[in-house]
Amino acid sequence: MPHIEVPGGLPGIIGAFAFRPETAKPLRDLAEVLLRGPSSLTCAERETIAAFVSARNDCHFCHASHRAAAAHHPGGTYELVDAVRSDYRSAPVSLKLKALLNIAAKVQEGGRRVTAEDVAAARTEGATDLEIHDAVLIAAAFCMYNRYVDGLATSTPTDPRVYDEMGEGMARQGYAGLR
Amino acid sequence: MPHIEVPGGLPGIIGAFAFRPETAKPLRDLAEVLLRGPSSLTCAERETIAAFVSARNDCHFCHASHRAAAAHHPGGTYELVDAVRSDYRSAPVSLKLKALLNIAAKVQEGGRRVTAEDVAAARTEGATDLEIHDAVLIAAAFCMYNRYVDGLATSTPTDPRVYDEMGEGMARQGYAGLR
Repeated sequence: MPHIEVPGGLPGIIGAFAFRPETAKPLRDLAEVLLRGPSSLTCAERETIAAFVSARNDCHFCHASHRAAAAHHPGGTYELVDAVRSDYRSAPVSLKLKALLNIAAKVQEGGRRVTAEDVAAARTEGATDLEIHDAVLIAAAFCMYNRYVDGLATSTPTDPRVYDEMGEGMARQGYAGLR
Repeated sequence: MPHIEVPGGLPGIIGAFAFRPETAKPLRDLAEVLLRGPSSLTCAERETIAAFVSARNDCHFCHASHRAAAAHHPGGTYELVDAVRSDYRSAPVSLKLKALLNIAAKVQEGGRRVTAEDVAAARTEGATDLEIHDAVLIAAAFCMYNRYVDGLATSTPTDPRVYDEMGEGMARQGYAGLR
């Protein structure tokens, strides 16, 4: 049972957004810029980082929904995002994305865990300063979204089809208008 | 040395904001709503939660600046925010704020750590659903800001006077226009 009563008993962050529209707006805008705004990282890559961090934070709602969003973007599949979750080092993704996932994994543990060597390794694989910045901020932002969703004990659907549909909507329509 | 080069070598999150104005806007808007928007929690109380979580995440820049912001708001002092940091249970703050700090401490560790008992204890001390929501989201948001600042290894002033001045500006002018 959720710790607070949200309108319509809506699940996950959707319920929290409905409860507090004033904070929902910047939270939605941040996701829109980071995950769908102009970037040299594909949307599938960015959603994969979001799903990866959410899994490490043990947030089922965010992991399942962003896993589905990654799978619904061009270049993304459920198999790929699941392979990253299991072991990103052996997953069939680019060396650049592996280096950014390494940084994201450090950020999930704590900002100070990211070393100059981690960043240099990402640059060696062609990552730009903007890509490194965004990998850090996506990981940091999901440490927020995950805690927000689970800290309120929002309701969590269990049917995978719910997340598949949700992820399709996130990939197609994005976050800015998410209610 | 920062992991990425930021305009003018600006310190902490100010440098990160200058590097990426597109993400700075929702990040500034979120802080403005959460820490200075209309609320039954005082600004000093909300900045105290922010400083408390930042200390637990070992983020010097955020802790020192929000500690100073708390001290510059009506009802806030450096002694009070420092007492909360040392041991919030014995600090001279309201029982309601202590119960919200307990929830914030759990969120800092992970969203799933917050129990129905933690929330019931806050309600017993008079906390509303909105105050409980905001305590969770302030704690979650600082788990993001702290990781963002330290994950990029942004430069960290050591002179306490720099933070006192910064905190005064944060308390007086807020975050929406922060550059």
